[in-house]
Amino acid sequence: MRAVDLIIKKRNGAQLSTEEIQWLIKGYTDGSVPDYQMAAWAMAVVLKGMDDRETTDLTLAMAASGDQLDLSDFAPAAVDKHSTGGVGDKTSLVLGPMLAAVGLQVAKMSGRGLGFSGGTLDKLEAIPNMRIDLSEAEFRHAMRDIGMVIMGQTADLAPADKKLYALRDVTGTVECIPLIAASIMSKKLAAGAKSIVLDVKVGAGAFMKTLDQARDLAQTMVRIGQLSGRNVAAILSSMEQPLGLTIGNALEVREAIETLQGHGPSDLIEVCLTLGSHLLVLAGKAQNLDAARQQLQATLDNGQAWAKFREFVAQQGGDLAAVDQPESLPIAPIQIDLLAESSGFVQRIDAETCGIVATELGAGRARKEDAIDPAVGLVLKRKVGEPVQAGEALLTVHAANNERAEIALAALKSAISISPAAVEALPLVFESVA
Amino acid sequence: MRAVDLIIKKRNGAQLSTEEIQWLIKGYTDGSVPDYQMAAWAMAVVLKGMDDRETTDLTLAMAASGDQLDLSDFAPAAVDKHSTGGVGDKTSLVLGPMLAAVGLQVAKMSGRGLGFSGGTLDKLEAIPNMRIDLSEAEFRHAMRDIGMVIMGQTADLAPADKKLYALRDVTGTVECIPLIAASIMSKKLAAGAKSIVLDVKVGAGAFMKTLDQARDLAQTMVRIGQLSGRNVAAILSSMEQPLGLTIGNALEVREAIETLQGHGPSDLIEVCLTLGSHLLVLAGKAQNLDAARQQLQATLDNGQAWAKFREFVAQQGGDLAAVDQPESLPIAPIQIDLLAESSGFVQRIDAETCGIVATELGAGRARKEDAIDPAVGLVLKRKVGEPVQAGEALLTVHAANNERAEIALAALKSAISISPAAVEALPLVFESVA
Repeated sequence: MRAVDLIIKKRNGAQLSTEEIQWLIKGYTDGSVPDYQMAAWAMAVVLKGMDDRETTDLTLAMAASGDQLDLSDFAPAAVDKHSTGGVGDKTSLVLGPMLAAVGLQVAKMSGRGLGFSGGTLDKLEAIPNMRIDLSEAEFRHAMRDIGMVIMGQTADLAPADKKLYALRDVTGTVECIPLIAASIMSKKLAAGAKSIVLDVKVGAGAFMKTLDQARDLAQTMVRIGQLSGRNVAAILSSMEQPLGLTIGNALEVREAIETLQGHGPSDLIEVCLTLGSHLLVLAGKAQNLDAARQQLQATLDNGQAWAKFREFVAQQGGDLAAVDQPESLPIAPIQIDLLAESSGFVQRIDAETCGIVATELGAGRARKEDAIDPAVGLVLKRKVGEPVQAGEALLTVHAANNERAEIALAALKSAISISPAAVEALPLVFESVA
Repeated sequence: MRAVDLIIKKRNGAQLSTEEIQWLIKGYTDGSVPDYQMAAWAMAVVLKGMDDRETTDLTLAMAASGDQLDLSDFAPAAVDKHSTGGVGDKTSLVLGPMLAAVGLQVAKMSGRGLGFSGGTLDKLEAIPNMRIDLSEAEFRHAMRDIGMVIMGQTADLAPADKKLYALRDVTGTVECIPLIAASIMSKKLAAGAKSIVLDVKVGAGAFMKTLDQARDLAQTMVRIGQLSGRNVAAILSSMEQPLGLTIGNALEVREAIETLQGHGPSDLIEVCLTLGSHLLVLAGKAQNLDAARQQLQATLDNGQAWAKFREFVAQQGGDLAAVDQPESLPIAPIQIDLLAESSGFVQRIDAETCGIVATELGAGRARKEDAIDPAVGLVLKRKVGEPVQAGEALLTVHAANNERAEIALAALKSAISISPAAVEALPLVFESVA
């Protein structure tokens, strides 16, 4: 087999066989297929597409390119959750304990944030002493005892995806549903969970800008999962404005704690209940979505989710005192409000701009090597549809110094608009795909 | 400027600006744009195309990536000729002296053959002591005194094209009219000729399989030339069967000599007269194609072309005795005829198979490092449309040994077919583009 022939085949719009895709990914992983051939192939895929069978073959080949976790002996029905990335998205911190509280085993390998604000690991590290680098023994122990782990990727999961993802980033081949779906799902499949729920974000602050694109991605990932013998469902949720009220690592941990204690913002709770109820049904823990939702709501109402979160923090070495007194978590020295210039109703809070501003404040990384400041970020005082009077605070900037706060305030002015007329609240969850 | 943005622009079907194309080629030449980005861009070009302005910009940028010959002080009206590659194509050996004999200055930088049979330089080297590595002083001297040079590329002409061509070969991005046109024309423009005629081959033995493809390529190259201030014309000529009767280096030199002495095959003469008459008109040496054709035919009839060929050989150090007695040129030890198995009319002599067989006999290179055997090749005894009796020779294989001859004969059997009914001669020159 020659790589150039497979490139030409795809360029001409034909389908590659399972064997051909396996050969290509194996060669790319071991270096016998060079970057320049993979780049040409990726561009041909972007412009000519791949069908479900090819996309599943690519996913499985990338999943098989490194370690594949076998959880069968200690967590045969493990569940996982993945979001395509949203601003203010602390869902994993809330949903994980809720799921574990109803008896599911949550095995989440998470990543660092690159781009808009921090990743889940960065958020967890805002809790003093919290460890995300568990050994395999610790992982097994936590899964058995607590039923929940959120950790960094220690195993060599889907190295072919890692290599291809970096290549796509510099060759204009990112925007392609089959390649995005295969990238996400290869890591999920290698991480070993039996049931997976996907939160595909849609809107100005998400990678998928339209409902059609998001639906296409969700359907593709669900089909890959089904063809691979996993239980997979997806929801399409809005990312026009940030999720919840906080953006920034310690700020988001605080909001997650409040939510677990029953005082969370309604949009964050709704996304957790929707994602979680799909997972309960997929995993056979509930007969239907309504029953699942009631089970999950109960974990917030009766304190079980909060108790599970404390167990999780303690298990991974985190400082329980800090989560019990969230005011002791890192806090920024400068806090300045952005004030409404007119009275009316909030019409738009641009999620993408909020994410970029939070990153520039130090809550996220523009480059891999950038350091994170756990304290900084934004706290929204209003969400879209809510009334505001001129001079009232729209949000508070939490910054390391005045200069950075002023830059943030200037950038945020154009991200928020106020309408004199009433504005409807934004839709949150559009639909589900299963 | 970032390469990834230019790749995305082309991927989305937009046009790159002149400045963007110049930046990309400059970066690729100096190594700041890596192969993997160029490969993705090339695939986007294959699938999304380039317009004439972009193609001309690419051509000029590649021409400007290395040395650009300035012939203005000693050959201001120099002419050049290029063929897209045919089997048995010894046109340059015949046409060069014809053009020089009517007073044009022919500056031809030629290449080694890769693929079907040898290149023009390989053919010349079948003449003992013939040198193709002229110094710049020798080049100027020959252009002034003889009006004709065929030499290897000593200057660093269009290095960006050389690099891109090698990349396209392994990334499935060869089949693309704008990239093919830019590749050919960048070298022609850098070589400095004022008037250029292009022989675009069409058919089973050519890279362009259909007349539409060939016309598209010819028109693109002619427009590039015109937009670049050169006089360019192209003809579309058939490459279903080999040109002339010989394939192989010394065999083709012998046939060129016979043609220059007025005894050549009609198809070779016709291609030379057609190409040459276009060049004479382009260069202002003739009022129209008919007058040009008469001038050129006269050089074959009156011995001037043959005399010019002898001057050219002597100028480049070749052994005049060998061309005066062509039977002294290298000759293969084994000569075996392929006999007709039935009587009738020759219906097909597959040029591609003839080229491959000649290469396998040693007349060409499958790889750059392969050595050429100047003596071996094929001599056709019949052309398409000619009658043949069962048992008569269709062609003669010239081989280094019996084993290779037998392999060649076996491969050639399926390349030739005989029809019981009369077969029309193949068309030769389809049309011209100017």
